[in-house]
Amino acid sequence: ENNCLEMCDRPKNTNVRLSLPAVCIVWQTAMIILFGVFIRYNEESDTHWVEYKKENNIPSDIENDFYFRYPSFQDVHVMIFVGFGFLMTFLKRYSFGAVGFNFLIAAFGLQWALLMQGWFHSLDYTDGKIKIGVENLINADFCVAGCLIAYGAVLGKVSPVQLMVLTLFGITLFAVEEYIILDLIHARDAGGSMVIHTFGGYYGLSISWMLYRPNLDQSSRLQGSVYHSDLFAMIGTLFLWMFWPSFNSAITDHGDGQHRAAINTYLALASTVLTTVAVSSLFQKHGKLDMVHIQNSTLAGGVAVGTAAEFMLMPYGSLIVGFCCGILSTLGYIYLTPFMEKYMKIQDTCGIHNLHAMPGVIGGIVGAITAAAASESVYGAEGLINTFDFEGEFKNMVPTKQGGHQAAGLCVAICFGIGGGILVGFILRLPIWGDPADDNCFDDEPYWELPEDEEISIYFCSWACAVLIASKQTMQLTAFVVEDCVAFGVLLVAAEPNLPQRDSCPFVGDIFSQC
Amino acid sequence: ENNCLEMCDRPKNTNVRLSLPAVCIVWQTAMIILFGVFIRYNEESDTHWVEYKKENNIPSDIENDFYFRYPSFQDVHVMIFVGFGFLMTFLKRYSFGAVGFNFLIAAFGLQWALLMQGWFHSLDYTDGKIKIGVENLINADFCVAGCLIAYGAVLGKVSPVQLMVLTLFGITLFAVEEYIILDLIHARDAGGSMVIHTFGGYYGLSISWMLYRPNLDQSSRLQGSVYHSDLFAMIGTLFLWMFWPSFNSAITDHGDGQHRAAINTYLALASTVLTTVAVSSLFQKHGKLDMVHIQNSTLAGGVAVGTAAEFMLMPYGSLIVGFCCGILSTLGYIYLTPFMEKYMKIQDTCGIHNLHAMPGVIGGIVGAITAAAASESVYGAEGLINTFDFEGEFKNMVPTKQGGHQAAGLCVAICFGIGGGILVGFILRLPIWGDPADDNCFDDEPYWELPEDEEISIYFCSWACAVLIASKQTMQLTAFVVEDCVAFGVLLVAAEPNLPQRDSCPFVGDIFSQC
Amino acid sequence: ENNCLEMCDRPKNTNVRLSLPAVCIVWQTAMIILFGVFIRYNEESDTHWVEYKKENNIPSDIENDFYFRYPSFQDVHVMIFVGFGFLMTFLKRYSFGAVGFNFLIAAFGLQWALLMQGWFHSLDYTDGKIKIGVENLINADFCVAGCLIAYGAVLGKVSPVQLMVLTLFGITLFAVEEYIILDLIHARDAGGSMVIHTFGGYYGLSISWMLYRPNLDQSSRLQGSVYHSDLFAMIGTLFLWMFWPSFNSAITDHGDGQHRAAINTYLALASTVLTTVAVSSLFQKHGKLDMVHIQNSTLAGGVAVGTAAEFMLMPYGSLIVGFCCGILSTLGYIYLTPFMEKYMKIQDTCGIHNLHAMPGVIGGIVGAITAAAASESVYGAEGLINTFDFEGEFKNMVPTKQGGHQAAGLCVAICFGIGGGILVGFILRLPIWGDPADDNCFDDEPYWELPEDEEISIYFCSWACAVLIASKQTMQLTAFVVEDCVAFGVLLVAAEPNLPQRDSCPFVGDIFSQC
Repeated sequence: ENNCLEMCDRPKNTNVRLSLPAVCIVWQTAMIILFGVFIRYNEESDTHWVEYKKENNIPSDIENDFYFRYPSFQDVHVMIFVGFGFLMTFLKRYSFGAVGFNFLIAAFGLQWALLMQGWFHSLDYTDGKIKIGVENLINADFCVAGCLIAYGAVLGKVSPVQLMVLTLFGITLFAVEEYIILDLIHARDAGGSMVIHTFGGYYGLSISWMLYRPNLDQSSRLQGSVYHSDLFAMIGTLFLWMFWPSFNSAITDHGDGQHRAAINTYLALASTVLTTVAVSSLFQKHGKLDMVHIQNSTLAGGVAVGTAAEFMLMPYGSLIVGFCCGILSTLGYIYLTPFMEKYMKIQDTCGIHNLHAMPGVIGGIVGAITAAAASESVYGAEGLINTFDFEGEFKNMVPTKQGGHQAAGLCVAICFGIGGGILVGFILRLPIWGDPADDNCFDDEPYWELPEDEEISIYFCSWACAVLIASKQTMQLTAFVVEDCVAFGVLLVAAEPNLPQRDSCPFVGDIFSQC
Repeated sequence: ENNCLEMCDRPKNTNVRLSLPAVCIVWQTAMIILFGVFIRYNEESDTHWVEYKKENNIPSDIENDFYFRYPSFQDVHVMIFVGFGFLMTFLKRYSFGAVGFNFLIAAFGLQWALLMQGWFHSLDYTDGKIKIGVENLINADFCVAGCLIAYGAVLGKVSPVQLMVLTLFGITLFAVEEYIILDLIHARDAGGSMVIHTFGGYYGLSISWMLYRPNLDQSSRLQGSVYHSDLFAMIGTLFLWMFWPSFNSAITDHGDGQHRAAINTYLALASTVLTTVAVSSLFQKHGKLDMVHIQNSTLAGGVAVGTAAEFMLMPYGSLIVGFCCGILSTLGYIYLTPFMEKYMKIQDTCGIHNLHAMPGVIGGIVGAITAAAASESVYGAEGLINTFDFEGEFKNMVPTKQGGHQAAGLCVAICFGIGGGILVGFILRLPIWGDPADDNCFDDEPYWELPEDEEISIYFCSWACAVLIASKQTMQLTAFVVEDCVAFGVLLVAAEPNLPQRDSCPFVGDIFSQC
Repeated sequence: ENNCLEMCDRPKNTNVRLSLPAVCIVWQTAMIILFGVFIRYNEESDTHWVEYKKENNIPSDIENDFYFRYPSFQDVHVMIFVGFGFLMTFLKRYSFGAVGFNFLIAAFGLQWALLMQGWFHSLDYTDGKIKIGVENLINADFCVAGCLIAYGAVLGKVSPVQLMVLTLFGITLFAVEEYIILDLIHARDAGGSMVIHTFGGYYGLSISWMLYRPNLDQSSRLQGSVYHSDLFAMIGTLFLWMFWPSFNSAITDHGDGQHRAAINTYLALASTVLTTVAVSSLFQKHGKLDMVHIQNSTLAGGVAVGTAAEFMLMPYGSLIVGFCCGILSTLGYIYLTPFMEKYMKIQDTCGIHNLHAMPGVIGGIVGAITAAAASESVYGAEGLINTFDFEGEFKNMVPTKQGGHQAAGLCVAICFGIGGGILVGFILRLPIWGDPADDNCFDDEPYWELPEDEEISIYFCSWACAVLIASKQTMQLTAFVVEDCVAFGVLLVAAEPNLPQRDSCPFVGDIFSQC
């Protein structure tokens, strides 16, 4: 009974009834004001398009960037909301939080990203307005991806308010880091291996390190999956996997750029699946496959090919990148994640180190090498300029130097990730955010109204019944029976603290009355 | 035991073995005949396209409308079948009916819609044929959406035959209403706030009012969700949410029209998520989020921005619309739905009033205001004509007058919804459609072969076992045990009427033989 | 107890710890080498595109084939991985294998298909390289579809290594068969009714016939669905259904070809849904619908319209094809599948005969008739040449002769399917592939690390508890109780062999200690 009480008491207040609405309303109001001041349609989404077309001799509406990028945008959108959201539903009792908070922070993040990225990239200096079109929507989704990756590391251990803070700072850091890497350093990063995955991965891992919970293993009972939660996660995996070619090609150059990026990603991902299966089977007893690997490591190839997807990586090059990443990522789940938890105090719920951080770094390196190895004989004179954007102030850039810039970009991404994560982690440690106690981790109960789980409810009630009937048969007194019922309850609650409260059991009363 | 019998008897005959096949076969045959008489390919989907191209100096196949609209069409298609279908799977024991009947009525409705809308909009008067292309497919899907919205109000309370009737009349009314609003009144309604959502919402609510079941709360036990049914519903929510920009931009003007509609919808939806979360948390004890709100109210912004999405609503305008709708829709779920059920005799299973009807009306009003406020300085001279289609007989239209026409369109939509719903509700009250008794509402059992639910089956059998063993131990006679088993069964069935029949329990026999 | 032991012993070794990794690594390495030697980007995905554009007077990047086909490609990609994968998750305990092995063999198959199809169709004879672009990716996905169809017949009865072998040979046979049908015979088959569905269907059925398991009905207990597994399968069904228009139009001619194929498929599928529902309801007692039919037969129209989708089948023609296929496919599930299992020794887990083989043959016949009936008056002179590709060495072809060629193509597909299936089935009977014993069929347990199923685990432990408590009340000795527990276990395991091992029950120990 002591044990039960011990498990039931909650020293931390997870009530976010004031803080969460306040954050949502205030920040959304701020967005409206900032959008009112800054954001306008660009020439392709404004009603003046019809005049713009004439002035610029654009022969057809089909030349509007919308038709080049909207299908890819929608694929990316699916990755952000269904892909990331469902990938994290694997936990048996945190699926609402996975898909719901993913939804919340993505919806906030994309607005803030439109502003932050707009100031850096789409500001029209003639009128001080940010002009947006479909490419800005894609970039906002990309920016959000960085924060969702970070969410993977702290999944189940933070409150929604903390997630909003994580996102606010994450988007801000992302926009600065992206500006430095893409504009100042002039690194190329079509699929965001560095900008999105490396940054997002280390950002999340650093936050998780700052929020280390030494006694978390007590609630490890909830840190597993059930059969159907693993299937829900596979929905996320597959939509990420299928649409990754769109992710890596969404903002590359019109024409061959998008075409090639899609092919490279398609191939890298296919290769990753086979090596993931191989390693997963080889390192388990009896050669059985582990769903964690299938759900996550199969995606590593898409991450690692992100930077180089638009380059002439060649089809076999993509296969090689995927081959290596499948192996490394799966080995990461088997050896590195437990090691990091035990010795480095980094609790990485979804294993984002193996899916994003490490493959992101590999992707940065592959990108640097591929860029450095570029030549006119392979790319063609115009193709080389086109692909690496050797124009304007970077007119005199050469591939080898570009390789160095790529490497510099990777370093910036890592530094921003780790530095930003430590800073934000420090903020998130303040005791004002309504984060859950260790015992409430990986549990939807603190933040969600949960439907009564009928199966378990029936089961619990059946206990009471069984005892009653058994007792009746042996002609015991009712009083004795009731005591026994209570004893049962205690025993049960001790073993299974997430059972519904006894008073929520609807027909125990009826049964008693029938005895 | 009386109680059990009372709960088990079914005064209504839900057998649709003759009526459902008859309706399906006869109506499908009628479709074939009518398509044979009326429907042909249009010039863009006919093999004569190659000649048409030359005659009209179309420079490239890419100018075929297929490439402007097919990606959006597929997104809309996903919304209709997966979006609406899975959104309604939230009920614990009506998921087959939700996704299955949604499938059935959408597949029928789109055929009938191609005809009805074709007669009004795509009839070629030279040969009396309806010429169809990808835009007709999108419009057919839109038309179906109106009926699927109505289905949400009566979910779980009607038979599939009733749904077919609801759809037949719904599509017919829709096509007439749409013709009046878009062609006669010359209102604009790109995303169908009025034409689809307002009409569909009030159509469904009126039907539900006509089919009011005063004693429905008896079966309220089935009117809830379970953990995984809520997750399935989130699949529907997210696909609706993600693809709503395609819905609102699918049939807008090529170029800036589609581009702007997508941006506005994207922003309105993002804003709605934050205010939905805020209100959901604020009005629940302990600040916990309610899945019903997250599943539904987050979509209200997409509805409300439907009419104005193609106008120069401005990005901040979209955010404001979404902001308000998230709040109103969530408050609707908390206060209005219970109020309507209690005092207005409207039982709205999915809360379509909060998700479609009310946001639809808001959308109509926003559209009217935005249209009335349009000016050449914002739209440009050509842009204004283009956007509002001030051409032909409406050449002399001005924005303020257009605003009035928009408002008139909204009134027509409401009238058609309510009037049509009452009419159709009257027809559906005839006792020939195989609708379920109150006790069978929200239950797939009357219309679907259900897999034996192993968990519950095991559990039921375990009861018998437990008693047997317990009795054996206390050395009771077998006869006594059997009696007890029966008593158990009665007790159990009284409490849980949806348990499988006792005779379907496979190994009770075996156990008895071992006693 | 004997019964239990008999059911628990596994005469076959399902350990694939060496074979599966070996196959994956070796074959993936081979892919890398072959890709290195053979595969390069084509002119539209190479950086030389910018020069190619100028040389060929291509006015805009939008003319890159990427923009004609990429949206359709992504839809097809979703069908392959989510559509086929989730359609097969309907079995209660084989969902991991369904979606996971589908993933594995598709990822391998598409690489091998790029090579095999490349050698036949995309080999550049100037440099001996295969040049790939988005159309090759679509064709690779198509090729994979043939093998996934075959997987449906043997679902749950083979090891992953066998599936890899099935895929290796399946892709090889497919590429040869496709070359003969499309290039040598000059049959048209846009949606692959013959090339994909007929071949894949008979290939799978022949393999299943070769691997006949006479005693399989013993494990039929696992060969059913549960409520939520049926819902997961509906995700697969709907994504297949919705995106089938993209499947049939993905590689048809630019412009009207893609447009018309999409319309025809959309209509055929809609019609199929209604007749499937009609027949399903008519042939079940009480008129209840069967989920197996809704999940599968509703798709038959898409298969049957595959060949003729690009022809002038006319909208009503598509409806008629769908009408017939819905009826035949559903009747196939009701009568033919049991007949084939009983009398022809073909165990067809997913009923691919009714969903692919038979509708594929119908599709081939419809294609032959439609082609033979083509005329200049309907197609236009240029349209006729365009649609049937009466060019080059087939310049003098006429529609009636084309009809004959179509029929010849169908025969080739059937022969390759049956012949190839028998050959590969023979190979798969070798006792080296780690296939499961009859008792392990339809069970994920041999090949997957399964999460402990809490519900059942609780339930099992509750047994022990119940007996203990009951005994305590009747003051029996603990020894007696323990014996009883064991008796219980035996009883239970005999009845429910897939319960978790007794020693995995976490708190039985605790309970004993508390007694």
